[in-house]
Amino acid sequence: MIIIGEKISVIAKKVREAMNARDPEPIQELAAAQWKAGAHFIDVNIGPAEENGEDLMKWMVESIQQVVQAPLCLDTTNAAALEAGLQAHNNEWGRPLINSTSNEPDRFVMLEMAAKHNAQCIALTLGKGSLPADAEERCGIAAEIMARAAEYGVPMEDLFLDPLILQVCTMQDQAIHAIKAVKMFQELNDPPMKTVVGLSNVSNGVPKEMRSLIDRVYLTLLMYEGLSAAIMNPLDKDLMDVLKTTDIFLGNTLYAHSYLEM
Amino acid sequence: MIIIGEKISVIAKKVREAMNARDPEPIQELAAAQWKAGAHFIDVNIGPAEENGEDLMKWMVESIQQVVQAPLCLDTTNAAALEAGLQAHNNEWGRPLINSTSNEPDRFVMLEMAAKHNAQCIALTLGKGSLPADAEERCGIAAEIMARAAEYGVPMEDLFLDPLILQVCTMQDQAIHAIKAVKMFQELNDPPMKTVVGLSNVSNGVPKEMRSLIDRVYLTLLMYEGLSAAIMNPLDKDLMDVLKTTDIFLGNTLYAHSYLEM
Repeated sequence: MIIIGEKISVIAKKVREAMNARDPEPIQELAAAQWKAGAHFIDVNIGPAEENGEDLMKWMVESIQQVVQAPLCLDTTNAAALEAGLQAHNNEWGRPLINSTSNEPDRFVMLEMAAKHNAQCIALTLGKGSLPADAEERCGIAAEIMARAAEYGVPMEDLFLDPLILQVCTMQDQAIHAIKAVKMFQELNDPPMKTVVGLSNVSNGVPKEMRSLIDRVYLTLLMYEGLSAAIMNPLDKDLMDVLKTTDIFLGNTLYAHSYLEM
Repeated sequence: MIIIGEKISVIAKKVREAMNARDPEPIQELAAAQWKAGAHFIDVNIGPAEENGEDLMKWMVESIQQVVQAPLCLDTTNAAALEAGLQAHNNEWGRPLINSTSNEPDRFVMLEMAAKHNAQCIALTLGKGSLPADAEERCGIAAEIMARAAEYGVPMEDLFLDPLILQVCTMQDQAIHAIKAVKMFQELNDPPMKTVVGLSNVSNGVPKEMRSLIDRVYLTLLMYEGLSAAIMNPLDKDLMDVLKTTDIFLGNTLYAHSYLEM
């Protein structure tokens, strides 16, 4: 499974301060640690970044790719900042991933960017306004986004469908709908569509000491239904151990007594 | 899910010594601890018990039911010892469970015992000799046992089909076959057949510090496919936490911040 390291986010105070001060060290450390822990992509969440977004994203991409030989997942609602990031991105380490488009008109520009810069793109199955009620509704939205992506010239294999993970503590029944959506998304195309989740959304609002447990169990279930990628915390050793163990059961890794160390 | 506490087993030195000395205390302590931790049945594994098996099983059943108000899962290959246990069992706390019949002729007597004493019965999908190769073969054996159970007068709802959990470290691909078997077993009857596993068999042979992790991930996957019961260690808090969290995702329990304490 593709691991997208989630730690470089404007939501974290340390990261926000480093962004504002243009201090590369804390950001580079987080990038290197996640890469070393097994992340295939490093998520770079600068938020809306309405002021100096272009300059910030360019600086982030360059700073991070100085220390990790990995592609980045560019996470912003600011299309100009996104484009600056895509232009700065070193594709030698893999093509970048855009986070994210959806079925909301103001997000279609992300598909335009994906096509223009030969990037992959996450597609949140979020429609116009209200949250999707179940797996079927998520599939309907996914189909609309897929049609839109085709119009923009984004190949289906460059799209990662995201069922929109909601918090289990207030929307408990949505957890299983999202799992079923991951299964159903794959059937929307041949070869199967790729899927992705923002894993830790599921444990938002849960007491802090229980969050990792909830993420772990949910990851196992999502992987069982064929999840291709997760935006998650690769520095959570317990979470990584569960991921590796699930891969053993699914036959993705050959068992060896040392499999947790690989 | 039905939890069958596995700790009272002749394999454990402390238990074996208490059995031999007819010292009830260590056994009663283990029974009470498992019951308090959430076990619905207490497994009583006295092994083949070729000498004094009847006396031993009777003493075990009476000693344990002095301290827990729960039904027992009587685990022996000695049919006479089993019958002594069934006769001593206090059905006021629920009907006992026999562990186990299979499709091997020397185990048919367990079905006879189940019918005679109105007990429930675990049916290992083990044929004559070789191990089942996949889920389909397990279903074939299950169907034969079901037909045999009907002949003996054991109702289908009193049968728990066990896919035979093998150790992942040497028979890795069997792990997923057993999960699929749990799913397929249910479709062999309407209402669905009940299912059970001996969970910790999956981590036999694995380094000790990794066993609980492997059991936890496997339990989540089995529960997702509808497992009815597991012979497991209810004193493993991490395992119980995963069980409770899986129940949240499956909608079997309503989420509350305190769900791990329930």
